[in-house]
Amino acid sequence: MTIYHAPVKDIHFLLDDVLKIDRFNNLPGFADASQDVRSVILSEAARFSEEILHPLNAVGDIEGCTRNADSSVSVPRGFAKAFSQLGEGGWIGLSAPVEYGGQGLPATLSFAVNEIFSSANMALEMFSSLTRGAVEALLTHGSDEQKRTYIPNMLAGKWTGTMNLTEPHSGTDLGMMRTKAVKAQDGSYRITGTKIFISCGEHDIAENIIHLVLARTEGAAAGIKGVSLFVVPKLLINDDGSVGERNAVSCGSIEQKMGIHGNPTCVLNYEGATGWLVGGENKGMEAMFVMMNEARLGAGLQGMAQSEVAYQNAANYAKERLQGRAIGGAAHPEKPADPIIVHPDVRRNLQSIRAFNEAARALALYSALRSDLAHRSEDAETRSSADEYLSLVTPVIKGVLTDKGFANAVAAQQMYGGHGYIVETGAEQFVRDARITMLYEGANGIQALDLVARKLPRNNGRAVQAFLGEIDQFIADNGSQKNLTLTVKALNEGIADLKKATGSLMKFTTKDPNEAIAGSTDYMHLLGLVALGYMWGLMLKTAYEKIADGDSSDYLTMKISTGSFFLERALPETALHLRRIEAGGRNILDVPAEAF
Amino acid sequence: MTIYHAPVKDIHFLLDDVLKIDRFNNLPGFADASQDVRSVILSEAARFSEEILHPLNAVGDIEGCTRNADSSVSVPRGFAKAFSQLGEGGWIGLSAPVEYGGQGLPATLSFAVNEIFSSANMALEMFSSLTRGAVEALLTHGSDEQKRTYIPNMLAGKWTGTMNLTEPHSGTDLGMMRTKAVKAQDGSYRITGTKIFISCGEHDIAENIIHLVLARTEGAAAGIKGVSLFVVPKLLINDDGSVGERNAVSCGSIEQKMGIHGNPTCVLNYEGATGWLVGGENKGMEAMFVMMNEARLGAGLQGMAQSEVAYQNAANYAKERLQGRAIGGAAHPEKPADPIIVHPDVRRNLQSIRAFNEAARALALYSALRSDLAHRSEDAETRSSADEYLSLVTPVIKGVLTDKGFANAVAAQQMYGGHGYIVETGAEQFVRDARITMLYEGANGIQALDLVARKLPRNNGRAVQAFLGEIDQFIADNGSQKNLTLTVKALNEGIADLKKATGSLMKFTTKDPNEAIAGSTDYMHLLGLVALGYMWGLMLKTAYEKIADGDSSDYLTMKISTGSFFLERALPETALHLRRIEAGGRNILDVPAEAF
Repeated sequence: MTIYHAPVKDIHFLLDDVLKIDRFNNLPGFADASQDVRSVILSEAARFSEEILHPLNAVGDIEGCTRNADSSVSVPRGFAKAFSQLGEGGWIGLSAPVEYGGQGLPATLSFAVNEIFSSANMALEMFSSLTRGAVEALLTHGSDEQKRTYIPNMLAGKWTGTMNLTEPHSGTDLGMMRTKAVKAQDGSYRITGTKIFISCGEHDIAENIIHLVLARTEGAAAGIKGVSLFVVPKLLINDDGSVGERNAVSCGSIEQKMGIHGNPTCVLNYEGATGWLVGGENKGMEAMFVMMNEARLGAGLQGMAQSEVAYQNAANYAKERLQGRAIGGAAHPEKPADPIIVHPDVRRNLQSIRAFNEAARALALYSALRSDLAHRSEDAETRSSADEYLSLVTPVIKGVLTDKGFANAVAAQQMYGGHGYIVETGAEQFVRDARITMLYEGANGIQALDLVARKLPRNNGRAVQAFLGEIDQFIADNGSQKNLTLTVKALNEGIADLKKATGSLMKFTTKDPNEAIAGSTDYMHLLGLVALGYMWGLMLKTAYEKIADGDSSDYLTMKISTGSFFLERALPETALHLRRIEAGGRNILDVPAEAF
Repeated sequence: MTIYHAPVKDIHFLLDDVLKIDRFNNLPGFADASQDVRSVILSEAARFSEEILHPLNAVGDIEGCTRNADSSVSVPRGFAKAFSQLGEGGWIGLSAPVEYGGQGLPATLSFAVNEIFSSANMALEMFSSLTRGAVEALLTHGSDEQKRTYIPNMLAGKWTGTMNLTEPHSGTDLGMMRTKAVKAQDGSYRITGTKIFISCGEHDIAENIIHLVLARTEGAAAGIKGVSLFVVPKLLINDDGSVGERNAVSCGSIEQKMGIHGNPTCVLNYEGATGWLVGGENKGMEAMFVMMNEARLGAGLQGMAQSEVAYQNAANYAKERLQGRAIGGAAHPEKPADPIIVHPDVRRNLQSIRAFNEAARALALYSALRSDLAHRSEDAETRSSADEYLSLVTPVIKGVLTDKGFANAVAAQQMYGGHGYIVETGAEQFVRDARITMLYEGANGIQALDLVARKLPRNNGRAVQAFLGEIDQFIADNGSQKNLTLTVKALNEGIADLKKATGSLMKFTTKDPNEAIAGSTDYMHLLGLVALGYMWGLMLKTAYEKIADGDSSDYLTMKISTGSFFLERALPETALHLRRIEAGGRNILDVPAEAF
């Protein structure tokens, strides 16, 4: 019942015209991703998402996953075939190293493709993204042997990956973890404990599952300092690389949950399972953060991706549903009623979702390009400043793109009236699926805390100052451009609010850090709004340049309307966040817990 | 797994101290609802909701309703018994006329009880509220015989009521309705057509169902002017008042939907069913609006009620879940970790939900009191001004209390992290159930349109001017109260924004009404915020007065913290809405439909 069309034109505009990624042909992999190659890859991703992945989206929701009596788990009909095509098509390893079977292309391109696949079928795409996260951790911290043993089959979609952190009593607070690892004589470990909320934890979508598991070795220090990372394959690997006997890990149950029914969320019981250390003992958190940061950016992308597919369906419905007449006279007198898109409030709603989606896509790709710079640049300073930027915006992308992405899925559902509540329409699945993105990979309150308490003060605020400096420069460079008057004015206001908020947090911090943290969610959204506003600045500048160059396409006209809408109606929310931050936390902090 | 405690203390504070309803003992029914009586009724409602209704809430969600092969519908286990207790206890007819078996008590008290029952089990409470709506329409427009025939059994919970408006192609646009009514020789009508989205449309919770159905008589005018209302019982009534043979109405299917699984949403097929005209021919919309307004206020109440129960569970979880440590040192060093309520962002979130709930409850009861005045006052001017107020705020209560109520259920779910996504926890049911309140009884965009295009300009804006005048008077009366300095300052800002926004809408209207309507949702929320802020004004004033009188309870201390939080952090959102309204609609209206 739902439709999806990959936003290929918009991605091209961003990569080719706004970010001009061909400037970076000196970076490894970028020259191989010329405009022609990108065009082939994106149109193939579009075809695959529209024809294979999206038709399975409702199937996955309705069928869900089943845990069988032998503790095996069956995924929805059609998922295994589609996933093997994802592997065979090289999609999982699009930006992974060639030596392990990847395509070595820019992460920027991989991000663009991941948005498309997540819009089409988030529950299915999660099998890829979890696998990519596990590969990333092995690439960074694994031994050469581990890399050779696991990564090629993972990138090929033959094996999938998982990330095992949470235990029933230990979620955000990983230091409370109890799972144990006892060293055996051959250097391997025996892992014992229970992990919960393990996405893709058990399934029949692929031959094997490579679990990355946090556990404590004997005598390890208390808290997160005593945590190590282990690789624990579901089926042990024979010397010839083939899969052998079953390891002592099994699925105790799968969760009944609000959405992403096509992806099994498992309780995994490790009962003396054989695992191997990844990186050094007690270095688990470091290794896990590689996966975690990847997963946080990925969750942000998912939030935006659900907002995009929800928008497309709502816009489609608004153009087709005939009900009532336009104010001031029928727009289509030949029809029994006008399509509801004639109504200003319907348009306001659609424009509001769209204005976020396009800026969020820009921010995701802009940040992915920085990720490529951080990993591939030959220049140490470029790597380091890109890494600082990424570290700063990761919680913002996670928190803001999922909060707003979910709110947009709800707003899109609203367009259908009562029909939006009916399962068959499909709009409510986007809402339920989008909801998880705000909760997993660190609930959004944790993202705000990470931003304000850790990322912001690091190096005396160098990262945020650099980002503010870049926007100030944009304002300075474009202040006299007549076309950009509104843009520059709106950005100026937004950035002034952000600067005041940053100052206010610093002031509170010296008095009582709790009072600064009482403003953390507002600060995260304020920074996110300014970042999205800046993206509109870049996009509008590019659009006007292309128009000046003779391009008179409807695409650019709409881009300007949508961007102007954002600057006029969405960006001014910065003032509200500033106001809340400045209010401090006394009415929150001075209340006894029992009063709630 | 979930808990619920009826907010009896808060309701008493509102009825006894803030609204001082004993002042109205001259109104019929009020003297019978003395403080003692209210106390007995509220504590009995609390007991019934906590012991009977709430334990069935998750049962209803998980079991759902089943349509059987014979087209009968089974409701979840336990629902029928609980509903008969609702009827026997006199709860359905609490404020209905004594002559038809009601208790004749104030609607204000009935509203308070309905909030409690909706929090405890919304799907089950809907059987009562739909019945009450149908009773209201019969009371206002039915013949004496119709009243005698139907109402007593409906108030007793033996029969339930429904409201049949929507058809597949005719939702908001009721003028497109096709269901036909053909007059028979005996004066009854034969009704033929298909109605959809009929809550409580078929079930085994009670003996009979009294459908109120909109249909067109032969030769009726096109559009809503040609619509009449009919009463169509599922089982025809014998002359002695007992139920007789089955009427020609049957349930074609029930909807699979996002939530309120405990309530069957039916497709009803009328195949020459026997019905009787309610009111005159072509007067259907008038009669239906009685039910509709009742239903809109009820939906607002439901949104707030879900926010309340979601809050209670989230607060409970935050006090129990041990994870991490307070910034600046352990709050409970004897425990393995601190409860998460030590964290400022958790408290901010809870305080934000609570600050809305308490003001929304106040606004609901304040408005219910006006409803009593509109219906029961002997003074024509009092009745008329109360009615004008109610007419103005009905779309605001529906739109704002459901939008914010849902957003709060989402915010409450957020407190649980990943656990909030799991069905067993119960937090996600509140979200799914709350979601319908924004969609049914006129989607919230329709409420905003109704407010800006119809209610606001009526009588040259007399209703909104009267409401603004009342708040201005509060400000004038309390400007010199030292305790209320913050309150008065915040209300002054909010009301200034509201006045500017009202002016801005008028200006746009003369140029292009569409541009005013582009700001309608923002205006609805702006007016809602000011109304909620005013409620905090009344509550804070009362709280300070009680403290001055020697009451030093924790309840009042918390009231002041929560109210101050609202004034500092929530009310300033008015400025954002004003900004959006002033931005106008060009970037929305001038875009071709195909560009979306």
